[in-house]
Amino acid sequence: MNLQLVYEGKSKRVYVKDESTLILEFKDDVTAGDGTVRASAIGKGILCARTSAYFFKMLEIEGVRTHFIEFDGYRRMLVRRLSIVPIEVIVRNYAYGSLMKRMPLYRILQNLDPPLIEFHYKDDVLHDPLVLPEDIVKTGLVTENELKAIADTALTINRILTSIFSKYGLRFVDLKLEFGRDSSGKLLVADEISGDTFRVIDETGSHLDKEVFRKTRETGPLLKAYIELAKRLGIKVDDIAAPY
Amino acid sequence: MNLQLVYEGKSKRVYVKDESTLILEFKDDVTAGDGTVRASAIGKGILCARTSAYFFKMLEIEGVRTHFIEFDGYRRMLVRRLSIVPIEVIVRNYAYGSLMKRMPLYRILQNLDPPLIEFHYKDDVLHDPLVLPEDIVKTGLVTENELKAIADTALTINRILTSIFSKYGLRFVDLKLEFGRDSSGKLLVADEISGDTFRVIDETGSHLDKEVFRKTRETGPLLKAYIELAKRLGIKVDDIAAPY
Repeated sequence: MNLQLVYEGKSKRVYVKDESTLILEFKDDVTAGDGTVRASAIGKGILCARTSAYFFKMLEIEGVRTHFIEFDGYRRMLVRRLSIVPIEVIVRNYAYGSLMKRMPLYRILQNLDPPLIEFHYKDDVLHDPLVLPEDIVKTGLVTENELKAIADTALTINRILTSIFSKYGLRFVDLKLEFGRDSSGKLLVADEISGDTFRVIDETGSHLDKEVFRKTRETGPLLKAYIELAKRLGIKVDDIAAPY
Repeated sequence: MNLQLVYEGKSKRVYVKDESTLILEFKDDVTAGDGTVRASAIGKGILCARTSAYFFKMLEIEGVRTHFIEFDGYRRMLVRRLSIVPIEVIVRNYAYGSLMKRMPLYRILQNLDPPLIEFHYKDDVLHDPLVLPEDIVKTGLVTENELKAIADTALTINRILTSIFSKYGLRFVDLKLEFGRDSSGKLLVADEISGDTFRVIDETGSHLDKEVFRKTRETGPLLKAYIELAKRLGIKVDDIAAPY
């Protein structure tokens, strides 16, 4: 297969398949500290790809439209080609991470019910600043109705994931989503849904997400956490070498 | 008069008069760049105090409750003693300043109608980060109803100032407000209302506010701008030495 690489990010490569589809390839790379800490965790790409495919399929069943088309079972995912809206949508169920940094008066893991939705403008130089919903509409990135639809979809996804995680004894902390428009202008969920983009903790408060790498800066504990997460969800892991 | 200094900020000293009142003394100091650039502009304190007193009186006439009690005509203002809510409320009519920094897709001086309200958590170390309305309520700083009242009051003040400025040919860009609670828990407008806390431009686009110092880092042009602003509003300036 002759694929044209159009983008390489911190954790994924993007190839053009044809006019309306792309292939996402999940790398083993993991980064933290705004990209300043980098490492390679053998098998991580496969784990994140499988986890993402698992959630995209779950969302499809629940009627949420995403860019997902097909998964090869390893690192590559066929997706619809979208024009990405440069906004990160974060849904928070419990206070953690950057929320504590901008507002230290929260108690760590404070229950936020109802969930908090926030929008960040995707800009590496500006470090993805928090913006107001009005900023997104007034600058013409999306219409008011589109923003409402994005927020509704984000909350729907949050409900679906909350229910899945709770079934497996996990507490769903927060989630980052991205959206894009297909050629007809319809908004679909894009990017990935994995331990790289959500936070989830087990009964003991241990993270089964990228927070493990942010804290330890080691790949072994990260792989263990990702394998444990996959096992809980019933995702195949027997072909992934467990870390020493 | 034997006054106890309780606080000295970048541009004001605060003295305790008695249990329920304070004296604000407006200094000639001006700072920019998050306090990294400092200068003294002789007469600036008097100009800001007179401008603030002018607006507090206007607000009183319009039924907006503020901490203002009395002005000595120079640098000192008697105010009600409040417990300050650590939130800056910014009302924006046109895109400028930090708004452009977090969302560069705005056009400079883009008309934002309806005005944008934003809240920042007052914390020098964190550089007063933008927060969401939910952050303020969920951390217990104010109740949901109080936040609504604060936003309503901010918009009312914005309407009053817009109308005053437009009468004198000035375009009102944005405004920073602070609020505090009196001993009975009532929320009142606190701090000051001057060229240090709002932005206003004349027919030629020239600033009659602190932006002049932020740009030139010189006190002469700043004093000229503050004197011009005071003159337009009919505020006494004949005892202030105009800069060379």
